[in-house]
Amino acid sequence: MAKKTTLKEFESVFPKLEEDLLAWVKQYNLPKEQQEWYKKSLEINTLGGKCNRGMSVPDSVSVLLNKELSEDEYFKAATLGWMIELLQAFFLVSDDIMDSSITRRGKPCWYRHEGVGMIAINDSFMLESAIYTLLKKHFRSHPAYVDMLELFHEVTLQTELGQLCDLLTAPEDTVNLDNFSLEKYTFIVIYKTAYYSFYLPVALALYQLNIATPKNLKQAHDILIPMGEYFQVQDDYLDNFGLPEHIGKIGTDIQDNKCSWLVNQALKIATPEQRKTLEEHYGKKDKAHEAEIKKLYDEMKLEKLYQDYEEKRVGELKQLIEGLDESEGLKKGVFEAFLAKIYKRSK
Amino acid sequence: MAKKTTLKEFESVFPKLEEDLLAWVKQYNLPKEQQEWYKKSLEINTLGGKCNRGMSVPDSVSVLLNKELSEDEYFKAATLGWMIELLQAFFLVSDDIMDSSITRRGKPCWYRHEGVGMIAINDSFMLESAIYTLLKKHFRSHPAYVDMLELFHEVTLQTELGQLCDLLTAPEDTVNLDNFSLEKYTFIVIYKTAYYSFYLPVALALYQLNIATPKNLKQAHDILIPMGEYFQVQDDYLDNFGLPEHIGKIGTDIQDNKCSWLVNQALKIATPEQRKTLEEHYGKKDKAHEAEIKKLYDEMKLEKLYQDYEEKRVGELKQLIEGLDESEGLKKGVFEAFLAKIYKRSK
Repeated sequence: MAKKTTLKEFESVFPKLEEDLLAWVKQYNLPKEQQEWYKKSLEINTLGGKCNRGMSVPDSVSVLLNKELSEDEYFKAATLGWMIELLQAFFLVSDDIMDSSITRRGKPCWYRHEGVGMIAINDSFMLESAIYTLLKKHFRSHPAYVDMLELFHEVTLQTELGQLCDLLTAPEDTVNLDNFSLEKYTFIVIYKTAYYSFYLPVALALYQLNIATPKNLKQAHDILIPMGEYFQVQDDYLDNFGLPEHIGKIGTDIQDNKCSWLVNQALKIATPEQRKTLEEHYGKKDKAHEAEIKKLYDEMKLEKLYQDYEEKRVGELKQLIEGLDESEGLKKGVFEAFLAKIYKRSK
Repeated sequence: MAKKTTLKEFESVFPKLEEDLLAWVKQYNLPKEQQEWYKKSLEINTLGGKCNRGMSVPDSVSVLLNKELSEDEYFKAATLGWMIELLQAFFLVSDDIMDSSITRRGKPCWYRHEGVGMIAINDSFMLESAIYTLLKKHFRSHPAYVDMLELFHEVTLQTELGQLCDLLTAPEDTVNLDNFSLEKYTFIVIYKTAYYSFYLPVALALYQLNIATPKNLKQAHDILIPMGEYFQVQDDYLDNFGLPEHIGKIGTDIQDNKCSWLVNQALKIATPEQRKTLEEHYGKKDKAHEAEIKKLYDEMKLEKLYQDYEEKRVGELKQLIEGLDESEGLKKGVFEAFLAKIYKRSK
């Protein structure tokens, strides 16, 4: 029987990987001060998250094998999972600079730490490089080594394209709702989030087990990309309609001029008058403006619109999972596990 | 007979590679505006340099084959060369942000272009990703494909380590000469410059021709790393002692608190009084302070010290080249060509 991993178990693998990375840079005679800097950057930027993405690699491998993993199987799967966390750390460190963010996971963003500043850019590069150091160390002789390298390259580029689209569509300082559209919204969420958060962990699990046939990869892709899209739509919904005590933060999408699912839906159905309200109040750093938008969202019944979207999308996803061809080793349970974590979540 | 490439010939390959890269992102349905942004970033950040690093791939391949290259051989070699130029563009775009630089190649730095700002960080990532897109497109079936991937990963990490050491040793805003040492200097120049500028082009040429035996790679490494070190020492020397009309810029290393070869030599041989002069005047953004350091460098006869260093180092390099074992296909001419370009250069 498959067994779900815990954060504690997953985190217990990290020190070994950190040791590998530190040993690797030590062989270059990196001065002591720089070694310590690298160690600190690795720990602060990689640890402390929920690790949902990383943990879904061992979870998926366990479902695919339909058994509890041996120590070696678990270590391999968790190592691949930590590479996703490193990829995410690479993006978060740099996104925070690009977005002028203040905090990350309840602490100051890395670039805002004393003495760090723009050195954080180079640190983000080193987090990315760590992926390939670990892949080489632990998967050099794996039959899917090249495929894994290419998968990381491709997903990295896809995420960068999503980020580029996001940055050009919703710059924080200039509000222009003409820039927004549901087509762009969909591009952004699929490329910036769905590939690395949903498709990547399952594709890696398939590669680890040598069952990443074109058919399995395509089936996984065709379920996980719409699922990732749904996840992000839900995130946008919760930013406004979720309870702060559930989601652990106060939503800021309206004030931050975010190209959110809600504003795109509102723009799509707005009367000329409602459009005027949106133009007047969206993306302004002010509680009163924000309140006008929140009122409009209520008037426009966006909560109901979301609930209808959710039911429809989840129905489609369930059908896709139901129709899955398991003949090449892929399992419905992989996707059921993902969906169960997301459906009707409140945080 | 080997034939040296020209900048014009090398540049004529770029449009084809740019087309590959644009076609690649188009398949993801990247919106039009983002496609144009990417094209502009590619052109502004990759073109307009001297391309010495990139051109040394076809030059080395031509020497190794001892013939003028066929069209296909040239295209392959130049493609590898352009990947080095992309790697450099990735580093320059981000270095300019980290160093708060104003101009690059006589034009405003990319992050200082209207509307770019911190989006340049993501653009730098996309320049790096372009390397792997091109490698996959043009070398997927090459026997050394995996080796090339790993070489790029390793050299990228090495350059990042050199950059980290540089950033922590010589922050522009806090001057502390105790931070400097010839050991750190050597680490910085080898890792930040020598690997990607000297070792990488020759290693790629060897891979292209399938003669990258461990012995050939080691021999190339053991000549090119000290040669790259010499190149950077010379660069530091020219920053102070070169003629602005030759080097095309006015040196700023003293005012910028750079961990330069000259200041490290000065620190090594300084009397307590000279040390005081260094402490008082180095790294200050002021012509009068700079003049004091320049006077001290003259007093300390650093020009002569450099000339002695150059003669000694070039003698050693010539001996290494002389002793090269050509039995596995490596050729002395590869290194002679590099050395001829550098020795006693004035720009």
